[in-house]
Amino acid sequence: MMQLPSSLLENAVAEFAKLPGIGKKTALRLVLHLLKQEKGVTTLFGDTLQKMRNEIQFCQKCYNISDGTICSICANSGRQKDTICVVENIRDVIAIENTQQYHGTYHVLGGIISPLDGIGPEQLTIESLVERVHKDKVTELVFALNPTIQGDTTIYYIQKKLASLNCRITTIARGIAFGGELEYADEMTLGKSISNRQPIGQYIK
Amino acid sequence: MMQLPSSLLENAVAEFAKLPGIGKKTALRLVLHLLKQEKGVTTLFGDTLQKMRNEIQFCQKCYNISDGTICSICANSGRQKDTICVVENIRDVIAIENTQQYHGTYHVLGGIISPLDGIGPEQLTIESLVERVHKDKVTELVFALNPTIQGDTTIYYIQKKLASLNCRITTIARGIAFGGELEYADEMTLGKSISNRQPIGQYIK
Repeated sequence: MMQLPSSLLENAVAEFAKLPGIGKKTALRLVLHLLKQEKGVTTLFGDTLQKMRNEIQFCQKCYNISDGTICSICANSGRQKDTICVVENIRDVIAIENTQQYHGTYHVLGGIISPLDGIGPEQLTIESLVERVHKDKVTELVFALNPTIQGDTTIYYIQKKLASLNCRITTIARGIAFGGELEYADEMTLGKSISNRQPIGQYIK
Repeated sequence: MMQLPSSLLENAVAEFAKLPGIGKKTALRLVLHLLKQEKGVTTLFGDTLQKMRNEIQFCQKCYNISDGTICSICANSGRQKDTICVVENIRDVIAIENTQQYHGTYHVLGGIISPLDGIGPEQLTIESLVERVHKDKVTELVFALNPTIQGDTTIYYIQKKLASLNCRITTIARGIAFGGELEYADEMTLGKSISNRQPIGQYIK
């Protein structure tokens, strides 16, 4: 493998190459880039990442990442507190927020139930979700989980826990994506998109 | 643009996105990866990069990167001190070292003469190269610069400085790369590869 003329360089390249999707060649390019800049650039880079990792908090209500004990979404009085969108991870929150189509709050499970991976309900934030539904008089739970057996198991488990409550349970719509090719869609998706067909007015205005 | 739920996260993503070839989406993926790992992983990452940037040195002879005042190539008694390969930057040294075909020493110019970019001979390490040629009784200077007008200008300038000395000046061979298609080669390269044709014994053994 590529020989480098300095162990300091070698170590820095190895650290970058630990990151997902970054190989040794890309890592070297990034390190040589930092080497060309002022020392302050690398100091700021390292300090900012360490500060982020050490100081970032998770919202005590929804487990989204947050600068404080309660995240900006839960703290926002304009968001509907009686609607909770249940997602697997933080990235899903960011993706849904970027659509600007959702005005309720979130609940980040931290994963989905997957016995094969040793993930049971107790590893997830399900208990506190159930508490929130009780306390905040939640009227709708929107599940936005990936459509896998594990996702369905998770929905089923939570649904059973909430059976006694008067809370509507929905999931995001499945269907053919915009720009997607009908003929390449899998049968499940195509089937769902037909059975859940919508009045045309919603799409063509 | 993508809204993030935390300014700490936002700052960390912005830092990664400053690196060449890393966009905001990739930056977010890298930061969320660090967030999933133990805090120690990020601490080590930041510390290693900062240590590299602050402690790395440049060889006082050849300006290659080095852990000490003299790099491992210049310090190696097995390398021919009377042959110097002149390159633009450190990456070129790494590339040539990896071929294991060169047994002399290097001289890193730190760039090439390019008046349009405001880079003149005094911004480069040319003066100390001339000194080395005098002091170390160098018999051959191998130029491994990119074949551009700037590269040629740089060679011409250095050559003139050394005109009084009995030092052979060569450049790396230009020609059709292994695996390259003859018909797609530019005229300059193809022309050079014909005029500098080699006895067949060197390639087919």
